[in-house]
Amino acid sequence: MFYHIKELQYDAKPERPDPIFAKQLQEILGGQYGEISVMMQYLFQGFNGRADKKYRDLCLDMGTEEMAHVEMLATMIARLLDNAPVKDQEAAYKSNPVVAAAMGGMNPQHAIVSGLGAMPVDSVGNRWTASYIGASGNLMADFRANLTAESQGRLQAVRLYEMATDQGVKDTLSFMIARDTAHQNQWYAALYELEQRENDIVVPSTFPRKLEKQEVSYTLYNLSEGEESKKGRWASGPSMDGKGQFKYSQPVSYGPAPSLTPAPKYIHDTMIPPIKS
Amino acid sequence: MFYHIKELQYDAKPERPDPIFAKQLQEILGGQYGEISVMMQYLFQGFNGRADKKYRDLCLDMGTEEMAHVEMLATMIARLLDNAPVKDQEAAYKSNPVVAAAMGGMNPQHAIVSGLGAMPVDSVGNRWTASYIGASGNLMADFRANLTAESQGRLQAVRLYEMATDQGVKDTLSFMIARDTAHQNQWYAALYELEQRENDIVVPSTFPRKLEKQEVSYTLYNLSEGEESKKGRWASGPSMDGKGQFKYSQPVSYGPAPSLTPAPKYIHDTMIPPIKS
Amino acid sequence: MFYHIKELQYDAKPERPDPIFAKQLQEILGGQYGEISVMMQYLFQGFNGRADKKYRDLCLDMGTEEMAHVEMLATMIARLLDNAPVKDQEAAYKSNPVVAAAMGGMNPQHAIVSGLGAMPVDSVGNRWTASYIGASGNLMADFRANLTAESQGRLQAVRLYEMATDQGVKDTLSFMIARDTAHQNQWYAALYELEQRENDIVVPSTFPRKLEKQEVSYTLYNLSEGEESKKGRWASGPSMDGKGQFKYSQPVSYGPAPSLTPAPKYIHDTMIPPIKS
Amino acid sequence: MFYHIKELQYDAKPERPDPIFAKQLQEILGGQYGEISVMMQYLFQGFNGRADKKYRDLCLDMGTEEMAHVEMLATMIARLLDNAPVKDQEAAYKSNPVVAAAMGGMNPQHAIVSGLGAMPVDSVGNRWTASYIGASGNLMADFRANLTAESQGRLQAVRLYEMATDQGVKDTLSFMIARDTAHQNQWYAALYELEQRENDIVVPSTFPRKLEKQEVSYTLYNLSEGEESKKGRWASGPSMDGKGQFKYSQPVSYGPAPSLTPAPKYIHDTMIPPIKS
Amino acid sequence: MFYHIKELQYDAKPERPDPIFAKQLQEILGGQYGEISVMMQYLFQGFNGRADKKYRDLCLDMGTEEMAHVEMLATMIARLLDNAPVKDQEAAYKSNPVVAAAMGGMNPQHAIVSGLGAMPVDSVGNRWTASYIGASGNLMADFRANLTAESQGRLQAVRLYEMATDQGVKDTLSFMIARDTAHQNQWYAALYELEQRENDIVVPSTFPRKLEKQEVSYTLYNLSEGEESKKGRWASGPSMDGKGQFKYSQPVSYGPAPSLTPAPKYIHDTMIPPIKS
Amino acid sequence: MFYHIKELQYDAKPERPDPIFAKQLQEILGGQYGEISVMMQYLFQGFNGRADKKYRDLCLDMGTEEMAHVEMLATMIARLLDNAPVKDQEAAYKSNPVVAAAMGGMNPQHAIVSGLGAMPVDSVGNRWTASYIGASGNLMADFRANLTAESQGRLQAVRLYEMATDQGVKDTLSFMIARDTAHQNQWYAALYELEQRENDIVVPSTFPRKLEKQEVSYTLYNLSEGEESKKGRWASGPSMDGKGQFKYSQPVSYGPAPSLTPAPKYIHDTMIPPIKS
Repeated sequence: MFYHIKELQYDAKPERPDPIFAKQLQEILGGQYGEISVMMQYLFQGFNGRADKKYRDLCLDMGTEEMAHVEMLATMIARLLDNAPVKDQEAAYKSNPVVAAAMGGMNPQHAIVSGLGAMPVDSVGNRWTASYIGASGNLMADFRANLTAESQGRLQAVRLYEMATDQGVKDTLSFMIARDTAHQNQWYAALYELEQRENDIVVPSTFPRKLEKQEVSYTLYNLSEGEESKKGRWASGPSMDGKGQFKYSQPVSYGPAPSLTPAPKYIHDTMIPPIKS
Repeated sequence: MFYHIKELQYDAKPERPDPIFAKQLQEILGGQYGEISVMMQYLFQGFNGRADKKYRDLCLDMGTEEMAHVEMLATMIARLLDNAPVKDQEAAYKSNPVVAAAMGGMNPQHAIVSGLGAMPVDSVGNRWTASYIGASGNLMADFRANLTAESQGRLQAVRLYEMATDQGVKDTLSFMIARDTAHQNQWYAALYELEQRENDIVVPSTFPRKLEKQEVSYTLYNLSEGEESKKGRWASGPSMDGKGQFKYSQPVSYGPAPSLTPAPKYIHDTMIPPIKS
Repeated sequence: MFYHIKELQYDAKPERPDPIFAKQLQEILGGQYGEISVMMQYLFQGFNGRADKKYRDLCLDMGTEEMAHVEMLATMIARLLDNAPVKDQEAAYKSNPVVAAAMGGMNPQHAIVSGLGAMPVDSVGNRWTASYIGASGNLMADFRANLTAESQGRLQAVRLYEMATDQGVKDTLSFMIARDTAHQNQWYAALYELEQRENDIVVPSTFPRKLEKQEVSYTLYNLSEGEESKKGRWASGPSMDGKGQFKYSQPVSYGPAPSLTPAPKYIHDTMIPPIKS
Repeated sequence: MFYHIKELQYDAKPERPDPIFAKQLQEILGGQYGEISVMMQYLFQGFNGRADKKYRDLCLDMGTEEMAHVEMLATMIARLLDNAPVKDQEAAYKSNPVVAAAMGGMNPQHAIVSGLGAMPVDSVGNRWTASYIGASGNLMADFRANLTAESQGRLQAVRLYEMATDQGVKDTLSFMIARDTAHQNQWYAALYELEQRENDIVVPSTFPRKLEKQEVSYTLYNLSEGEESKKGRWASGPSMDGKGQFKYSQPVSYGPAPSLTPAPKYIHDTMIPPIKS
Repeated sequence: MFYHIKELQYDAKPERPDPIFAKQLQEILGGQYGEISVMMQYLFQGFNGRADKKYRDLCLDMGTEEMAHVEMLATMIARLLDNAPVKDQEAAYKSNPVVAAAMGGMNPQHAIVSGLGAMPVDSVGNRWTASYIGASGNLMADFRANLTAESQGRLQAVRLYEMATDQGVKDTLSFMIARDTAHQNQWYAALYELEQRENDIVVPSTFPRKLEKQEVSYTLYNLSEGEESKKGRWASGPSMDGKGQFKYSQPVSYGPAPSLTPAPKYIHDTMIPPIKS
Repeated sequence: MFYHIKELQYDAKPERPDPIFAKQLQEILGGQYGEISVMMQYLFQGFNGRADKKYRDLCLDMGTEEMAHVEMLATMIARLLDNAPVKDQEAAYKSNPVVAAAMGGMNPQHAIVSGLGAMPVDSVGNRWTASYIGASGNLMADFRANLTAESQGRLQAVRLYEMATDQGVKDTLSFMIARDTAHQNQWYAALYELEQRENDIVVPSTFPRKLEKQEVSYTLYNLSEGEESKKGRWASGPSMDGKGQFKYSQPVSYGPAPSLTPAPKYIHDTMIPPIKS
């Protein structure tokens, strides 16, 4: 069960309305790496947790915090939309090019659809979709997804911070950026712990290595002309899992050119030889 | 530019057709973490690469390999669909419960839409969408996404290996699983290199820390009842970025309960006080 | 079968082109609560109608009218796009800020994709999807969906009316708003009739109440801090279905904290205790 | 902010695993009218609330409860998936037709993607999308959407109750069905209160009626052959808003057949008269 | 405006219910090339028609017919779902493997969501989306899309005919297949007429050829190893537009390897050289 | 397998950055008829090819070329985004209306999400989806889809050419337009060859005509008031397949008005007669 506390985790008050920034800020609310995504991802990982209780609890602690972030951003966006000048557009466009530009840059659904409220959409208006998130039951895989989400999320928050001029907005973003710092550190720590415990960095660590074609387990194929990619840590030396040596190789084809069996007649694919009706 | 070589990277020949497995195998072709996703993700990261050439080349090497995996899986799926028994269904259902079960378990679009061909869909038939992928220009963020994709992808391939009984299928999967081992190791190495070079694990490392609310940068809030989450590496000790100490804290509210301004009349939101028409 | 009459249900002629308004007007054509949605929703309810003929006929009457609205709006949008100034953009941006703003505010697909035609999209360009609509076979549930659609639809039309300055546009909208008034009244009447006939307001009325946990059938749980929600009609007094008394209650947990069984090994979830590879 | 309590609102324990029912039960978790939809819809209505505090609080009370329902259903689905027999499929299909049928009827992603966990998807595997929900700022419109969602949701839960044979599943569903009874009554009461206060049933009540084409505000057009639809409360008598009389009318066309202006040459639409290259 | 006639264009009565076939038949109702797609595509082409009236009328004639096809298929699907055995599933699965198989193969939403009604979805349950259709204002482009849709549509109908055993279903499909024959012939004729009139087969014919890089206007590049593709009409001889000669060529690169400018600091992309925080 | 060559197929260098045009150019990269669509469509047709090798090779030649086009456009878009002025927005909006307009017209995700990189999206930001493409196994159907895609694609490229003022952009587009000319000619030729070989223009040509209702195989129904559509090649004379005569006919109904059986009680649809709870 959940319980809602009226106070915000952090204040979310812009100095003044700005409907264009409201549109842009939607990215970290309802975008691919926005707060709805991390909230849903962590909660489903928690609800489905079949492993140690502490991981389950960790997911639920963080997922519950992300809900507070959804709330803060929704509140901020609603305030950025206060009194958005959507009435009598022609007048606005004619009299004031700056207002006109602003109107051209706002999301029209903020006026027409949500009535000056936040929406579960990204900065171009794509509706949030669960295609953004994952929960696999394998925590090393999932915590890597979480670390990714926090990395992309903090990057986007930082870019918005750079674009912003409103001190209220910047202040709220500085809080959210700090929380992303915390979450990146925490998922990183959890991954470190799991890698130690499973004694491997390869997901899933439980599949016997002898069942995979081990001769290609550490090779980088040079499939893009030029050898710039040879110069990295990934191309030579011991592999990161400590179980092999990195190799750099020209492309190899292990299989023949494929040839498919013709389809049965009742499928009505094009057949060889020519068909007469 | 690209050039296509007719030979497959590895053979993709099942011992015998199996339309149910064809449906399931679609997951790692056209699903969220399937081969189309990694191919598109790596190629876009490569095409957009503004940093060192070696990272760009690495992305293009791997993205180009993933195209070969798309080809292998498409070929395998087409062969698993050879002669799928979709004609005269009623007869099949009546005479043979095992065939009936098989027909109930295949993807009907493999017969009706693709004519026994592979499709850019997942194992339940969702069409592939670019909502699955990301390329941000920040390589640490993006390579974490890549490591995640290879981790989830190998996990799914392993699960399919466990479900399979056909030795041809298992053999092809054992190749793909090995390549996922290689790719996990390689992205892991690239991340290690980037973390060393940027001397930080927090993305983006270029945002001045003093601009974030540093007092909350290492705290885990206990927002889910119970303290199981206190027992992990993430809750105490030095933070993973080496710049602070992890803290475990009861929830704190830094903001007031929000109150929004009423909308202007021309928005026609519900107003306070009661409106008379 | 259907038959198409060339005349429009109402004229759809703006005084002058306005590509920005064309973009905005798309919301009530191809948006979540636009004319395509109600057309498809009512037609499917009609086609699937297994109850009294008069409800089936009502759905088909209205669904057929909504097709005329799709036609009117498509026509209006095409006219708003007449001679949209998309050629030689740089010149326009440089010479005339108001034209520049207009160009920034139009939907580029109106030029590139549809060639100055209307599209089945909303005001930000999301393609129409059948995820917007429903037809369940239970008319009380479905007519509530219809009343909702007409309410949201009229609200959006009214907001567009407020934004418009073109008298031709306003005139057409005033017709569509009146039809939404009619449709809200009609679905409301149909719902009233169904509630009387089923002697209940709860959908479905055919499920025996004794099979539900009746002790929680009229309670509002105070799950958000503060008791403002206690002051409404919904928190005390007889319930609206006349079968109970509203109650206001602090949160109650009837179930234990859940604990899930570990997954079988072949699933490769993270396991307890630690796994060694 | 939110706080998570470990106990479930109600127990969610099936008597035994059943992967087919797990797939079906996904409908009311991640489907169009599932718990994720109502949770997100009510929370956004609450966060965006600009009207009386009690409505905001009501939305947050209910939205917070729906999160508990998401948790219960996710838990139930995970348990229904315990030990799903996905290994060595061929053996299962050959030896036991009932197991074979079960495997054909389960969602393969429950094994391959989520590792026996619940997913934010419906019963056929469509990922949850925010296209399902709405929050307009006009409470009468929104509460009608809420009443619809609870009506469709209870209908679906009742149908699943009829399909179920497991007493644990039925018991949990009987709790959820009762809560849907409560929520239908509560939104119905809130709507009643709003209609009284606004003295109208037409949304938005704040648009001056004289601005709409009032001569068509109460007419039902007989656009589907036959007059069955004439026999309802909606076709004659006083209108539900008390402001007019229902009318039944043969179709009327108020507008001319439209004719569109040819596009400018730079659009490259097909032109009249014939174009020579 | 439209008018609905109660009679079906053709009867749509299966001999007996068959919920599996109902699911499969959804493909040509709500799938990519189903009746909803052609209906919407033709209607939007008609509504947006800026060229000769006869083309506009043709689109509206056909679009209006496709609505009748939507109605026929929806009716057929509803009848195939009559009395679907969805109650007490466990009993069904245990007692009768053939019924069990049938239940595993039906779309669960046909019971849970639509109450035994047709849905605007394809055979795996993807909701219909306007991403399937197009209307560009250039009739040669659009009629090619129409000819494609009728070709794919007839192919799918033929495949379903092969899968069906019910004589009522086959009879209805034989009507729809014949209509697809008519529509393929008609769009083919319209294309022939347009090609004659525009004296070109290349869309758009109105773009001056001298503005394109004409030296590559008729070349096929051999970008896939092997020269099988050299043996077709497309690789040599006069081009189909009569304005050039087909050529077969080894791949040519006209551009240099690209190199992108580093991003400005405020974008926080990965930079060259190493960044110190 | 594939191999990547660093050189571009053609140069992709704008004279100067232009973030608005970057947004617009996305249409032909990641839109419905953009380069990702043709690349994926041709590759899947090739991978699934069960007919003559030369068609398979043709699809792979062209699909591989389209990948080079994806690369060129991605490169062009990245360069158009060089140094996009997204920092300190307020200043820009205030000081310079033309810059302000430009900022209002750019895709905010180009700054926030992709860090000045191209994205797999269209010109309004819809993510690319495999719903755009098809591969049916029947080559006549598929090559018609390919001809359509090249026609719509060239039309969009031409429109963008008209909108552009940058000579670098125009030059690249003139190359892509020429390649579209080539591809239209080539698919046209392949279709011509297939029609000759199958001696029919109707897809699939392998379904016995006697199994369709041949009396309606060449009729155009006048379902839209007025007879403008009678004046085309499609309404009289020999049919294009040479097997019949076109006819023009007033609408005919071959079926009765449908009436559906009531649903079983356990479905909880609305029933006839009135239900008492």
